[in-house]
Amino acid sequence: MIYRMNDSGRIYLDYAAATPLAPAAFAAMRPYLEGNFGNPSAIHAEGVIARQAVETARESIALTSQVRPEYVIFTGGGTEGNNLAIFGVIEAQRKAGRTYADLEVITTNIEHPSIGAAMGRLTQLGVTVRYVKVDETGKIAIAHLKELLSPQTVLVAVAYANSEIGTIQPLHAIKKALAESEQKNNTQIFFHVDAAQAPLWVSCLFSTVGADALVLDFAKCNGPKGTGAVIKSRRVELVATVYGGGQERAVRPGTENVPGIVGAAVAFVEAQQNWKERALLVSQVRDEAITILKQTIPELLINGAQGRERLANNVNVSILGLDTEFAAIVLDSKGFAVSTKSACAGAGGGESTVVKETTGDSARAASTLRFSLSPETSVEDMQKLAAALKTHVQQMSRYSF
Amino acid sequence: MIYRMNDSGRIYLDYAAATPLAPAAFAAMRPYLEGNFGNPSAIHAEGVIARQAVETARESIALTSQVRPEYVIFTGGGTEGNNLAIFGVIEAQRKAGRTYADLEVITTNIEHPSIGAAMGRLTQLGVTVRYVKVDETGKIAIAHLKELLSPQTVLVAVAYANSEIGTIQPLHAIKKALAESEQKNNTQIFFHVDAAQAPLWVSCLFSTVGADALVLDFAKCNGPKGTGAVIKSRRVELVATVYGGGQERAVRPGTENVPGIVGAAVAFVEAQQNWKERALLVSQVRDEAITILKQTIPELLINGAQGRERLANNVNVSILGLDTEFAAIVLDSKGFAVSTKSACAGAGGGESTVVKETTGDSARAASTLRFSLSPETSVEDMQKLAAALKTHVQQMSRYSF
Repeated sequence: MIYRMNDSGRIYLDYAAATPLAPAAFAAMRPYLEGNFGNPSAIHAEGVIARQAVETARESIALTSQVRPEYVIFTGGGTEGNNLAIFGVIEAQRKAGRTYADLEVITTNIEHPSIGAAMGRLTQLGVTVRYVKVDETGKIAIAHLKELLSPQTVLVAVAYANSEIGTIQPLHAIKKALAESEQKNNTQIFFHVDAAQAPLWVSCLFSTVGADALVLDFAKCNGPKGTGAVIKSRRVELVATVYGGGQERAVRPGTENVPGIVGAAVAFVEAQQNWKERALLVSQVRDEAITILKQTIPELLINGAQGRERLANNVNVSILGLDTEFAAIVLDSKGFAVSTKSACAGAGGGESTVVKETTGDSARAASTLRFSLSPETSVEDMQKLAAALKTHVQQMSRYSF
Repeated sequence: MIYRMNDSGRIYLDYAAATPLAPAAFAAMRPYLEGNFGNPSAIHAEGVIARQAVETARESIALTSQVRPEYVIFTGGGTEGNNLAIFGVIEAQRKAGRTYADLEVITTNIEHPSIGAAMGRLTQLGVTVRYVKVDETGKIAIAHLKELLSPQTVLVAVAYANSEIGTIQPLHAIKKALAESEQKNNTQIFFHVDAAQAPLWVSCLFSTVGADALVLDFAKCNGPKGTGAVIKSRRVELVATVYGGGQERAVRPGTENVPGIVGAAVAFVEAQQNWKERALLVSQVRDEAITILKQTIPELLINGAQGRERLANNVNVSILGLDTEFAAIVLDSKGFAVSTKSACAGAGGGESTVVKETTGDSARAASTLRFSLSPETSVEDMQKLAAALKTHVQQMSRYSF
């Protein structure tokens, strides 16, 4: 049971940016917030209790994703996780004797800033970063991916589902292309999947995803803020990118955030336990919402994919010529929390790089609104939103004539 | 008011490793754990509330340390903070055109692993790392520091107070030596102070410390785990070492841990508000405890400094020949939580690098016990500890004959 912001009369449609902490997660955290505060590295009873809490949390995440517990590495969030997995594998290659200039990495131009900026840094370091084309819905062009794959390719990094337009990548097809290249060239290609938007809506079974690193941000699935994890495959060694004590098998040093980790595990397990039912219900609301929005505002364009290729809770639209940052503020004043892009891409205006890349249309990219639904968003909520947005669009068009 | 673990009848003497979350901090966090969960980068009301919470927390920390709010950068803990400040300043130098080989850094051999390991990494990268001598109490030898300072020195990194033996460094004298070198060579030397152990016991006024980076771990001063900050001086630019969105002025990207940051600020302000009174009271217990320990176990050696040169809550002893890891476990079974070294240096046995470096005595370094007092530790608690430790020492010596 997730409580809703709507108790205040608000309609919260920014679930992709932030989710409420699950009451069960908070309840699990409380003994470590109000009671035992031990350092898991300490050998006394208080430390042992804390260590057990961390390892029990690790085991339940591992069990949920069906990996061995030692492959779950806790981090301070999704951004740190993406950085650790990307630089961790690149530095492991260098430790094995290869230089930055020897290495090629493949990604897209529609990734979250924590991947996009990390790729920028790799480029600075001399790594060749290749950008695979995506189609108009944001899906990776497998044929182009195959062209880009080379004996130098060591890493392919993509999001499981795009945080702005909700497109779910064809992970199996990508993995298959990587496996073919690996076999042909006798190489190993690290498949990095940013799963920040995944746990509530799609399977995070490790074998289903097929990744070498599944990066989680538990704050996006009703866990506490400041918690994340990298789930890594057996064949991959990550090198630490932060230096300190031996925590998290020395890959991620620093005292473990015990209450956060405990809450994260509860939230993740809950998210994955019934993702199918949740996704089915919410995708029905999503599809009705899309129909309603199109009927109410005929000029509105839908960005992204359809049906099962789209995150169950994602609606992303463009209304050409509309100042959607202003629209978001007006909608806010009327009780709707919506966004224009992803929160990490900045709250402000400007083009959506995702929609620009997928559609090639600057006007469309400059006029996006993202409505990311919660499990409790109703069709009625979305009707109200459509009506409020229509009123605003009409008022704006009146001004412009 | 800090509650005590002792409610359970336990005597918790590992306050340097972990502190309980202050009830006031938890109370301040609850509205963000149970209520508003907005992403501070979002432009709607929920986001604005979260942003205000983060910025209000930043302002109270800034006010307490007397710096401008924009110089407070939140991190996920002390280890991350030490890494950010060290690599952030080194990378800023490189951005300005200098190579690793151009740069010299000075530190000691008694730093926390998050500084020690970062220095190891700098060495790998080609930076010259020089280790300044410390005296038998762990205090930096200023004369040696002056010898090591050169026109290439860009960074001096030390702990405000050593986490194992509690020695408070003569920051003023260090700062003076740096300033003289800066003037002589027309350079800028970044003075990094790891203040993880500081807030409850010494002043964290930025001008008093004289640092260019004051690194905090709020979990060590009754704040939540997984929260930290770097407070930087005006003259210093830090370059991000993690890549992502624009949060924390793009120096530390990733969605802010809103409840954690709110709790951290409350804890830090509370810690600093009455550090003098707290330190005075606890140092009296500490000094009585040292007297009692020496009387009870005459062969026991005290490691570290005395009086105001020692953290108010730190007692560190060696009992030559004693397996102190086993002693810690025995004491645990009798109700005392103690440690042998710092938690990040590993829970296990082995020499204390701090005591080895300060005393040059392997036997002494292999037989350390750290008792770090809480504000509620009583002389009676320490009498009980001394008695239990004596019993154990006697039993051990019986076995060895």
